[in-house]
Amino acid sequence: MATDDAAETLAGVGEFAVIDRLVADRDQPSAVALGPGDDAAVLYTPDGKTVVSTDMLVAHRHFRLDWSTPHDIGRKAIAQNAADIEAMGARATAFVVAFGAPADTPAAQALELADGMWHEAKLCGAGIAGGDLVSAPQWVISVTALGDLDGRRPVTRAGAQVGDIVAVVGTLGRSMAGYALWHNDIDGFNELRRRHLVPKPPYGQGRAAADAGATAMTDVSDGLLADLGHIAAASGVVIDVSTDTLGGDRDAVDAAAAAVGVDPWEWVLGGGEDHALVAAFAAAPPEGWRVIGRVLEGAPQVLVDGAQWRGDTGWQSFD
Amino acid sequence: MATDDAAETLAGVGEFAVIDRLVADRDQPSAVALGPGDDAAVLYTPDGKTVVSTDMLVAHRHFRLDWSTPHDIGRKAIAQNAADIEAMGARATAFVVAFGAPADTPAAQALELADGMWHEAKLCGAGIAGGDLVSAPQWVISVTALGDLDGRRPVTRAGAQVGDIVAVVGTLGRSMAGYALWHNDIDGFNELRRRHLVPKPPYGQGRAAADAGATAMTDVSDGLLADLGHIAAASGVVIDVSTDTLGGDRDAVDAAAAAVGVDPWEWVLGGGEDHALVAAFAAAPPEGWRVIGRVLEGAPQVLVDGAQWRGDTGWQSFD
Repeated sequence: MATDDAAETLAGVGEFAVIDRLVADRDQPSAVALGPGDDAAVLYTPDGKTVVSTDMLVAHRHFRLDWSTPHDIGRKAIAQNAADIEAMGARATAFVVAFGAPADTPAAQALELADGMWHEAKLCGAGIAGGDLVSAPQWVISVTALGDLDGRRPVTRAGAQVGDIVAVVGTLGRSMAGYALWHNDIDGFNELRRRHLVPKPPYGQGRAAADAGATAMTDVSDGLLADLGHIAAASGVVIDVSTDTLGGDRDAVDAAAAAVGVDPWEWVLGGGEDHALVAAFAAAPPEGWRVIGRVLEGAPQVLVDGAQWRGDTGWQSFD
Repeated sequence: MATDDAAETLAGVGEFAVIDRLVADRDQPSAVALGPGDDAAVLYTPDGKTVVSTDMLVAHRHFRLDWSTPHDIGRKAIAQNAADIEAMGARATAFVVAFGAPADTPAAQALELADGMWHEAKLCGAGIAGGDLVSAPQWVISVTALGDLDGRRPVTRAGAQVGDIVAVVGTLGRSMAGYALWHNDIDGFNELRRRHLVPKPPYGQGRAAADAGATAMTDVSDGLLADLGHIAAASGVVIDVSTDTLGGDRDAVDAAAAAVGVDPWEWVLGGGEDHALVAAFAAAPPEGWRVIGRVLEGAPQVLVDGAQWRGDTGWQSFD
């Protein structure tokens, strides 16, 4: 895929010619009224509202080119933004992408990145409607996701009520386990290592939760306790998580945690980037969701089995 | 503004606390149904369509912190994206912003950047509806602009017809002149130097052009001839520009060009980033627009006074 031929670098091919290659032969979904190639794209928004979220990924900080292929990085960049749209109870319709890279980057790597983005976007039924390509000292990728609520009310973090149950869909701790395995150069555990590079958000479940009356929802990007903390703070409630209900997640990372020499609960409760969805419900959650706790009255905080958790509670950008 | 107190850096204050400061006390426009603080923002799109465009700005490549204040950089980042929305005949309603910076960046600089973004967004009647803040080796800013057509058809680059006149609103060559003055360390010419740091797109004129029946439009971001080249290619026409009509722009940069030792036409015809709007019209353009050329039949190209221009025709990202 990579090439040493300078003519096949971003600089050699040239910005506009690379963009031509990136956008050629892509099937835009019906939500895209006008795709790449003009000053701006135009999307249909029949609901009368648009959901929008943006994330930036920086090389070495959010991904490593010696761990991930460009295709993996493209998938992850789309997945983490799509998960934010899901977490509002909406459906991703389109993404716009800005990509910065050194001038000597092989054009084929940019194409592979775009292929990965398209692969993941299609899993959501969405497309890449536009973008920007610039020169930067290292890879930096910025994705903005746009979504449609199809008439639903957005599910914010602020609506959890005392007495609600708390439920999750998707996996917990796998991405953090994979990160630790990569970081400590431990082979095996291929599924966990893979999940760190390409998360699997439970596409469609955000809408299912909204339809089931979810009162508050978020995706697990910073870590279960940190993200539940956002719901607790926004809703003004206590959330109590029961570890009894999370045995499946602990079991899935237990052997890897032993190999790395850490407490598996650090990953299940503190590890982010799996992009599971966690929500509060007044009634039963949709099929496939696991009840993991309940909403209590009190000063906003998250408890684990009724007590404060003393481990690491999640990612912050400038740690 | 800057501080040596480590506690007042992005790392010292912490991601979430910095974000709290960035979003506090901002008046969101009525288009923003749900602003920052959740997984995604929600915007009203009464037109049933959303216009969307994205740009990335990288330190040293697109701005310099020794030339621009953070406030200037924030204004420019918003202005260049707002111009893309204008160029479709739409009105910017909201922006989402991703900002990457080193951990030791003073939090006050991030606030000043946000203040500049808000200042410029308000000039368009828009707000900053959401964002992301991450650690990066140098400043990198990614802005996505969203806009509403208010029932108009989008004005693409593809509709110019043989016999149309071509007109421009806004200034040409000033930003490139300013860049050359900064780059060559030439004092004076304060207005030109200022225009390089903070462009002045002609907000509202894109909608005026659409209402006047513009057949094709773009903003001058790469350079007049390069951007007219995009219209010529997309529309399948020849565009002939008359330098007689551009004397005002040449006069405005003439003394600076002499000081730098270049042909002022290089800046007027080749310099981008003023974010003027250029459009084709079957009838008269709106008040304030200057007729600068006409649309002819033939293999797509841009002519200057009926002949090929031999100077530099514009910016590419990996030059």
